[in-house]
Amino acid sequence: MYFGSDNQSGASAKVMDSLIQANQGMSDSYGGDIWTQKAIDRVKEVFEHPDCQVFFVTTGTAANCLALSSMVKPWQTIVCHQQAHIAMDESTAPEFFSGGARLITLDAGKGRLTADTLASYLQRQALHVPHNPVPGALSLTQANEAGQVYSPQEINELATLAHSKGLKVHMDGARFSNAVASLHCTPADLTWRAGVDILCLGASKNGCLAAEMVICFDQDLARDFEFRRKRSGHLLSKGRLLGAQVDAWFSDNHWLELANHANTLAHRLALGLKEVESVELVWPVEANELFVVLPSALASFLQSKGAVFYDWDSSTLPDGYKIKPSDQFVRMVTSFASCTEEVETFLELIRSFKP
Amino acid sequence: MYFGSDNQSGASAKVMDSLIQANQGMSDSYGGDIWTQKAIDRVKEVFEHPDCQVFFVTTGTAANCLALSSMVKPWQTIVCHQQAHIAMDESTAPEFFSGGARLITLDAGKGRLTADTLASYLQRQALHVPHNPVPGALSLTQANEAGQVYSPQEINELATLAHSKGLKVHMDGARFSNAVASLHCTPADLTWRAGVDILCLGASKNGCLAAEMVICFDQDLARDFEFRRKRSGHLLSKGRLLGAQVDAWFSDNHWLELANHANTLAHRLALGLKEVESVELVWPVEANELFVVLPSALASFLQSKGAVFYDWDSSTLPDGYKIKPSDQFVRMVTSFASCTEEVETFLELIRSFKP
Amino acid sequence: MYFGSDNQSGASAKVMDSLIQANQGMSDSYGGDIWTQKAIDRVKEVFEHPDCQVFFVTTGTAANCLALSSMVKPWQTIVCHQQAHIAMDESTAPEFFSGGARLITLDAGKGRLTADTLASYLQRQALHVPHNPVPGALSLTQANEAGQVYSPQEINELATLAHSKGLKVHMDGARFSNAVASLHCTPADLTWRAGVDILCLGASKNGCLAAEMVICFDQDLARDFEFRRKRSGHLLSKGRLLGAQVDAWFSDNHWLELANHANTLAHRLALGLKEVESVELVWPVEANELFVVLPSALASFLQSKGAVFYDWDSSTLPDGYKIKPSDQFVRMVTSFASCTEEVETFLELIRSFKP
Amino acid sequence: MYFGSDNQSGASAKVMDSLIQANQGMSDSYGGDIWTQKAIDRVKEVFEHPDCQVFFVTTGTAANCLALSSMVKPWQTIVCHQQAHIAMDESTAPEFFSGGARLITLDAGKGRLTADTLASYLQRQALHVPHNPVPGALSLTQANEAGQVYSPQEINELATLAHSKGLKVHMDGARFSNAVASLHCTPADLTWRAGVDILCLGASKNGCLAAEMVICFDQDLARDFEFRRKRSGHLLSKGRLLGAQVDAWFSDNHWLELANHANTLAHRLALGLKEVESVELVWPVEANELFVVLPSALASFLQSKGAVFYDWDSSTLPDGYKIKPSDQFVRMVTSFASCTEEVETFLELIRSFKP
Repeated sequence: MYFGSDNQSGASAKVMDSLIQANQGMSDSYGGDIWTQKAIDRVKEVFEHPDCQVFFVTTGTAANCLALSSMVKPWQTIVCHQQAHIAMDESTAPEFFSGGARLITLDAGKGRLTADTLASYLQRQALHVPHNPVPGALSLTQANEAGQVYSPQEINELATLAHSKGLKVHMDGARFSNAVASLHCTPADLTWRAGVDILCLGASKNGCLAAEMVICFDQDLARDFEFRRKRSGHLLSKGRLLGAQVDAWFSDNHWLELANHANTLAHRLALGLKEVESVELVWPVEANELFVVLPSALASFLQSKGAVFYDWDSSTLPDGYKIKPSDQFVRMVTSFASCTEEVETFLELIRSFKP
Repeated sequence: MYFGSDNQSGASAKVMDSLIQANQGMSDSYGGDIWTQKAIDRVKEVFEHPDCQVFFVTTGTAANCLALSSMVKPWQTIVCHQQAHIAMDESTAPEFFSGGARLITLDAGKGRLTADTLASYLQRQALHVPHNPVPGALSLTQANEAGQVYSPQEINELATLAHSKGLKVHMDGARFSNAVASLHCTPADLTWRAGVDILCLGASKNGCLAAEMVICFDQDLARDFEFRRKRSGHLLSKGRLLGAQVDAWFSDNHWLELANHANTLAHRLALGLKEVESVELVWPVEANELFVVLPSALASFLQSKGAVFYDWDSSTLPDGYKIKPSDQFVRMVTSFASCTEEVETFLELIRSFKP
Repeated sequence: MYFGSDNQSGASAKVMDSLIQANQGMSDSYGGDIWTQKAIDRVKEVFEHPDCQVFFVTTGTAANCLALSSMVKPWQTIVCHQQAHIAMDESTAPEFFSGGARLITLDAGKGRLTADTLASYLQRQALHVPHNPVPGALSLTQANEAGQVYSPQEINELATLAHSKGLKVHMDGARFSNAVASLHCTPADLTWRAGVDILCLGASKNGCLAAEMVICFDQDLARDFEFRRKRSGHLLSKGRLLGAQVDAWFSDNHWLELANHANTLAHRLALGLKEVESVELVWPVEANELFVVLPSALASFLQSKGAVFYDWDSSTLPDGYKIKPSDQFVRMVTSFASCTEEVETFLELIRSFKP
Repeated sequence: MYFGSDNQSGASAKVMDSLIQANQGMSDSYGGDIWTQKAIDRVKEVFEHPDCQVFFVTTGTAANCLALSSMVKPWQTIVCHQQAHIAMDESTAPEFFSGGARLITLDAGKGRLTADTLASYLQRQALHVPHNPVPGALSLTQANEAGQVYSPQEINELATLAHSKGLKVHMDGARFSNAVASLHCTPADLTWRAGVDILCLGASKNGCLAAEMVICFDQDLARDFEFRRKRSGHLLSKGRLLGAQVDAWFSDNHWLELANHANTLAHRLALGLKEVESVELVWPVEANELFVVLPSALASFLQSKGAVFYDWDSSTLPDGYKIKPSDQFVRMVTSFASCTEEVETFLELIRSFKP
């Protein structure tokens, strides 16, 4: 019953096999290998965008912040939701990579960024330059930090607004696979067709050991990327490590199968929890994360039986939400490595619980 | 009737005379001159702190950001009020000087930072390091951006809280003179005795052409200051330019006389405005700034008669404040160079206005 | 006959097996896994230093520059040999990570840094602060960029001199394994016992896919390391990727066996080349790199037969060395993946060559 | 007999008078004042370039490093002479402002940068990107740190070479006035007509208290300048302080009169020194600086009589120059504030000296 995080499994068997294959023989370094090239071709095909520029790195923080640093000047700002991973969990990496641009966080406690909020914010910005910082990029997370997804229409509305004010649009896709699997639309529809300029697509949480992609649909933004990646120490000498993982991950729709599996289990878990009166799901479950308020006694009982899930920051609860002193706010995550039995056992335990 | 800003006058006659005197003859460069030394001695005496370390620069942005960069590491945050000058009007200088530390802005629309707000924020910070940015400094503005002052007790409460969590305390004193003149307490009571670690004391808005002081009461914070100032291009070769201004500014209580004059006129202006039914002062007038909601027709009338004041950002209005469509939000500032006649003429004009 | 570089092979079978093992099951993220812990314990044991602080990253550039950033302030300098990898091949990563410290390169064309050169440089530095940059760290490469090693005595002499002037001592150990294998002394003798404060130990060139260690013998320098690693995007979520490689690499002296193999083949290659009149080894062969001047016709002949080696920058030749127009300067590198047959075939080809 | 430095006098009477005038009345802040506008117009006229973009700051370090940061990306290099002020005396400000670009210093001990040296350096750079740093700008000092001037032809040759390799051309003109006065050519001939993209023109050493200009002949380089200046704290609120100085400095050829005076006295001093057998001028005297080797006994004698001059770094002596143990290497500088009597008295003292 492991619902701690989706970054605590290893790689899928298929991805690992690819790595074992790729480990053989000599090959050009620094991305000149055949595996890297195959992986790049996969991205172009999957995203139906033969001209996009693709770069691989090992961590989501590196992917996000390298991408953002390509989009903003140091006197500009990056607008994002208050719970954005780049704002909460990547230290001050956005500032480091961008040479000191500023994060602006909007809209705590609503779980998602809306066009109204963005419009209202942007209309009163940078009236006095060079004194005021100038909005330079919008960053959206898909699926987002509240386990929700943005529809292509929402993305398009936000991106159109951003572009109209001169901002570039970044998408943090650490769980982009789960969003695609959830929304039943194409990767292209969720990104460049809706106005996304750069997607950071994470594979590490969904079947790889460490593999993240920076996909520049706006090719101008890719111009200096190789320099940025090198001087931040993110150019691997043995590119096959990343290329081999990504190549396998995309082959035969493997990435979406993995994401689909995680989403399905999350959905099943959500259905089970909704039947329990004392338990509340605070946000709609649209990907593979559940944000749950439950009695502390129940939480302790489950954990004593071996279930793993973690407390979550109560400042991220919906606006005005009051949590009872006897309750607890936790996050549960399913992954490609979760299994149906875990979910069933977990739900049975809940049903068996006598307060 | 000039109430535009207090940075649009020249230097006081006394300060200018000092500069003329100091212009004579040869003298050691880079702060080795006698005027710089005299100015440093003045600061130590005025603040009753013989061991403080004092540095001069030409702008408030340089003073604030050099000070902040001495207080925080690049993975730390600087907590301030949402309307803080460092957050609104200094571009991304805090990030630039600090190597990418982050500003955290609290408490929009209340006009001042309270201990409750700060305590509530700090208690849930940096629970997961190194992922979360870590609070490193508190920055207070005195007098603040809403024209209000913090009492020694308030400062002490905020500083004690900050120190208890490991934060250093910075004070942006661009209008510190006005706060001292308003509060009738000593400069020491308002700073190091209340827990301030570094004061950035501005003289440019109150009688000098360009002279700002960084006063490190916590001497450890001064250790690398000379390097930081030099590598940011803020070490003047002819130190007398700053030393001579500051020396004269402090002599015979000149700085407080100038501030007192500005405050008195602001107070008189406020008293007059309060008698006008259609006009509202949105914050208490405690220094030399007035934040005023008035009928747009009245504003236009006054400006047509030669009065100078500027529109202000309505997002800084008190929480929940609704401004009427026929009204306008403006700021009025008095300075050492304002005169009683300006205020009287201005008030008479208002009284004469027929909507 | 592959002598192109030692970063173009995959991982050794033993290292790959460890990775396959470690891929099983759930485990704590961000280095909280058992493989990371085992790898750290290996380092402490191999270096006979139970208190050293150990961090893993994926690239040598990241390891070097994170280490250097822990040693110098942004107004300080890092002194190194003119051919140092950090100066030639890591873009401006040292500046990026350190917030703008400066590299000072000494002693072009001598192939190694000497205590005399260092002493002569340091004695006239930073006479006028804060104007002059201040020496803050010495960086040595072991084995160095000319394929030579520094003896423990040499390191000690350089480190003592550096420490006496307040500099910290960094060692770039991308080929440290080869140096240990060559010098027949302990890892401890070559590092902390000789005065090295931080060693960056590379495994990627000698049997791993991507695994580099930052080993802080001076523990004060490790204090902020976790923050620096996180904000530069170098903290992997799945720490086992690095931990499993390093654990296997150190087990049963695997790392030194691999290095020994590479060195032995380099030595054999050198012996063969020395017998050829038209070929010259420009530096002593002390590790796994050979710097060779040979007739261009011979080079072309060898390459036409499938031998791989690359041209090298002629500005790195020894002082005063004149290369003939008909000659070519190349580098040959052996690795753990090279085999005796390659060397023998290569030497036979040379002997068969008729100009 | 003051030959210490040209940054140790005050402002000229004419410049000071202008400042006194400008101190009157209210005026727009942040460079919106009339004095700033007049000063900008002066620059355009003097340089015969109506489209150049002009910015004022208070220090030469700020001017140089803001200019350089507009020219290079952080993964590029700035090529300059080994004795360049930006390399020796501005801490690590170039790195700070540029976000970590690298200085490359060429040609120690020749006193000036030659096209041969530059060509030889550039031809072997950046062969492997993104690994190698990429040359991005050439910086020349005029008059240079050895008191010599570059002719328009030399500048043109160097700039043409730089441009052909994609580098921008920066000129550090802290003593540009002295160079113009020495070369009898127009400011335009020495700058944009010869290929200079940005000139940093210093007035502080030649008649002002603190006033430096950044003159962008290549207007593209000016695009972000106002942001860079603001976020580094170099935008003064009371722009008249700089505008008034510069306006007066240019009026009626005042700047060249001041420079001419300094040069003439330097020349006279040089002529006198050349007649003394035991004294040697190590570089031609082409502006207002003299680099002198003289017996230590003579130096002490002169200083005991009140002469002021300073020891100079002997590593800057010409290649191969051997200084006798009984000799001393010093720098003497004349300024607009020096007078003929000082020079005559000084020379008489020398002639009177009996070893």
